[in-house]
Amino acid sequence: MLQALRDDVCAANLAVRRAGLVTLTWGNVSGLDPASRIMAIKPSGVSYDELTPDRIVLLSLDSGEVLWGDLRPSSDTPTHLALYRAFDGVGGIVHTHSTYATAWAQAGRGIPAYGTTHADHFRGEIPCTRMLTSDEIAGAYEEQTGRVIVDTYRHLDPRERPAVLVAGHGPFAWGPTPSAAVENAIVLEEVARMAALTESVAQEARPIPRTLLDRHFLRKHGKDAYYGQR
Amino acid sequence: MLQALRDDVCAANLAVRRAGLVTLTWGNVSGLDPASRIMAIKPSGVSYDELTPDRIVLLSLDSGEVLWGDLRPSSDTPTHLALYRAFDGVGGIVHTHSTYATAWAQAGRGIPAYGTTHADHFRGEIPCTRMLTSDEIAGAYEEQTGRVIVDTYRHLDPRERPAVLVAGHGPFAWGPTPSAAVENAIVLEEVARMAALTESVAQEARPIPRTLLDRHFLRKHGKDAYYGQR
Amino acid sequence: MLQALRDDVCAANLAVRRAGLVTLTWGNVSGLDPASRIMAIKPSGVSYDELTPDRIVLLSLDSGEVLWGDLRPSSDTPTHLALYRAFDGVGGIVHTHSTYATAWAQAGRGIPAYGTTHADHFRGEIPCTRMLTSDEIAGAYEEQTGRVIVDTYRHLDPRERPAVLVAGHGPFAWGPTPSAAVENAIVLEEVARMAALTESVAQEARPIPRTLLDRHFLRKHGKDAYYGQR
Amino acid sequence: MLQALRDDVCAANLAVRRAGLVTLTWGNVSGLDPASRIMAIKPSGVSYDELTPDRIVLLSLDSGEVLWGDLRPSSDTPTHLALYRAFDGVGGIVHTHSTYATAWAQAGRGIPAYGTTHADHFRGEIPCTRMLTSDEIAGAYEEQTGRVIVDTYRHLDPRERPAVLVAGHGPFAWGPTPSAAVENAIVLEEVARMAALTESVAQEARPIPRTLLDRHFLRKHGKDAYYGQR
Repeated sequence: MLQALRDDVCAANLAVRRAGLVTLTWGNVSGLDPASRIMAIKPSGVSYDELTPDRIVLLSLDSGEVLWGDLRPSSDTPTHLALYRAFDGVGGIVHTHSTYATAWAQAGRGIPAYGTTHADHFRGEIPCTRMLTSDEIAGAYEEQTGRVIVDTYRHLDPRERPAVLVAGHGPFAWGPTPSAAVENAIVLEEVARMAALTESVAQEARPIPRTLLDRHFLRKHGKDAYYGQR
Repeated sequence: MLQALRDDVCAANLAVRRAGLVTLTWGNVSGLDPASRIMAIKPSGVSYDELTPDRIVLLSLDSGEVLWGDLRPSSDTPTHLALYRAFDGVGGIVHTHSTYATAWAQAGRGIPAYGTTHADHFRGEIPCTRMLTSDEIAGAYEEQTGRVIVDTYRHLDPRERPAVLVAGHGPFAWGPTPSAAVENAIVLEEVARMAALTESVAQEARPIPRTLLDRHFLRKHGKDAYYGQR
Repeated sequence: MLQALRDDVCAANLAVRRAGLVTLTWGNVSGLDPASRIMAIKPSGVSYDELTPDRIVLLSLDSGEVLWGDLRPSSDTPTHLALYRAFDGVGGIVHTHSTYATAWAQAGRGIPAYGTTHADHFRGEIPCTRMLTSDEIAGAYEEQTGRVIVDTYRHLDPRERPAVLVAGHGPFAWGPTPSAAVENAIVLEEVARMAALTESVAQEARPIPRTLLDRHFLRKHGKDAYYGQR
Repeated sequence: MLQALRDDVCAANLAVRRAGLVTLTWGNVSGLDPASRIMAIKPSGVSYDELTPDRIVLLSLDSGEVLWGDLRPSSDTPTHLALYRAFDGVGGIVHTHSTYATAWAQAGRGIPAYGTTHADHFRGEIPCTRMLTSDEIAGAYEEQTGRVIVDTYRHLDPRERPAVLVAGHGPFAWGPTPSAAVENAIVLEEVARMAALTESVAQEARPIPRTLLDRHFLRKHGKDAYYGQR
């Protein structure tokens, strides 16, 4: 069932580890088949060394029920489902505890757009959610995490800022495919690191001007993009 | 004699090095056989390249005497013995000088629970002992180190905070088995690094709320845990 | 056409990645054949794993037209052209988003000459350009980037400071050959890291005296150099 | 001529690179044969990939003349000679530009003894020299560097503090053999990193008490040492 999707999701999970974003079994990648509205995701707590496409779990996007697979899906599954339901065009989601992005999340701060590396992938500050309330934490916690993320994008376009920090927790990144989501997770971590170092050498660091931000984002995205081979 | 325990302890010592927590010959891992009350530990100052199960030393938990092996046990042996005697259910102990955990120990500060990465493994601040007195240092120093750790847990549960920082020295981590202790040592180092980075981007960083701390710890530990495969 | 130059430029691009200065497909190296006034450069957005000398693009230094190759040249091509036109004796240029150099660029600060590691390769502060104006950004942006760099060297000798930081963007380094430019890019990143760490342990850090700066630079460069084998 | 010494010095140079303390061709290791008063040292500016025992240069400790070898010795040779002449029992010297130790040198600060990792190898602060005067820099610079180091140890025992930082430059480490010197250079870099991180999490960090410093140093050194196998 959905072999190609399971292959992609398995490969994307392994790519996240290869990129150095993973400690132990932390993190998970999912992918969506929009036609069938089925989501594929890493099983919970399974070692990356033992991860194969046959161990990827398939669930219904609408009901959240497991449709295929012998293992329990990632405990963060309800967060992934909430994001796919709310964000049009997202086909892959990555959750990591990558070091620098997590540090900003723990600080409760969004990552300012200090340079063009940031602007090439994110059209503005990478936002940080508010802290969940005690009621949200005590209830359907993982689903509430998804809702707080969606609420953070009330006035933001998820295609222009394909990553978020959950306060006190860590990052989620996304994209049209699982591998595009992995790429955004990699860029997020590097941008988080550069931003922390920028502040360490300049207490008064300021975001780049809007014109430069747009120029770089639109150089790589949208109809007038001119980066890469087309 | 106790071949399986020596195999586990040898493998756990090598895993600590593979995880990047070791410089030169620093660090040591021990394991306990609770039935026979025998502890297995790395020999002192031996290169990891030359470490084999036959070079692991066995000692009596009660008397501290060497029961098996040709080499001298780690100079930190009395600290390990003191912890096994005091902490029920501990089957493995890891001592390292891993960089970030040691920096917090040198700063004399416990590591605040700034996020869910921390909370997944430690139910609250990772404590730092007081500095030993001159008399403690001049006497049975390694045993006194164990006593100061035990004293630090007077009102704390070692199963809920399976790692400690010894002021001016470095970390000890533990768990039900040697490999579980290694896992906690790995998480400790990553959490120590994230916490230092969190403070570097937010002077006013604050620990996560108690509700979130408990939710994450109990998601992975205890009778209602729902993380991983069961 | 110009096989040797394309070989050198391909090898230099791969050397930049091997040195750890590259994330994803970021960065590009070019080389100049001064006799024919032809520049060779990495194609835009191509994976380093797929880079071969046959994919390197050749352009006219004077007209900027592509003379050879099936792929589009790096989007930063106009910046490279502007530097070759203005800086005599430059035969190779490297652009990266290497972490520490980019952090200084994002901070809008030049890198002070805090030590002899710096002085061995750069005879004074590594300058940072001013931020481009909105008009410059909206127009021929990549060419204007080159002009702002050239303007920064109005009173500086590019052979004595073979690297620059573009404010809010990242570094460019150069040298007589592509491989010499790569070496300068590697040194720049290490010097940027050391300078950030120097300030972290000494708020009042000061550049080394002029005499020490000159002694080290001239030990390696110029007619009285006595470092290495001659 | 002195094949065993050249083998040791070559191996020690390669070990320094393997330990991650080297960028490009920076750094050099020497060794002394005390009986013949002959010093072996790395040739100047030679790539580590091309370093073999046959390329190591032999010089007279007394006259500084090259006695054997086709290549020019390291440009830092006069510093090495000055240290061997002044410090009894030193049989190996390592000079690197390792990142953290160089940052402290550039900051002009000695490294405080913040913990037992430091105390296991250095009995007190690792000193930093004064900056050389303009006259010293303009004259026999490398020899003057040696003299300033020796002067820094006027009231210190080089066997108890087998590493020094040269202000604005970088570290030298030593030991009874080339490989012991390499070990001290590795520990120095790790201790320098831990100390910088200690200060980043505790502005008011303080050195460990004298009793703890001595206990750890003497646990590994001197007649009552009880670390390792004997």
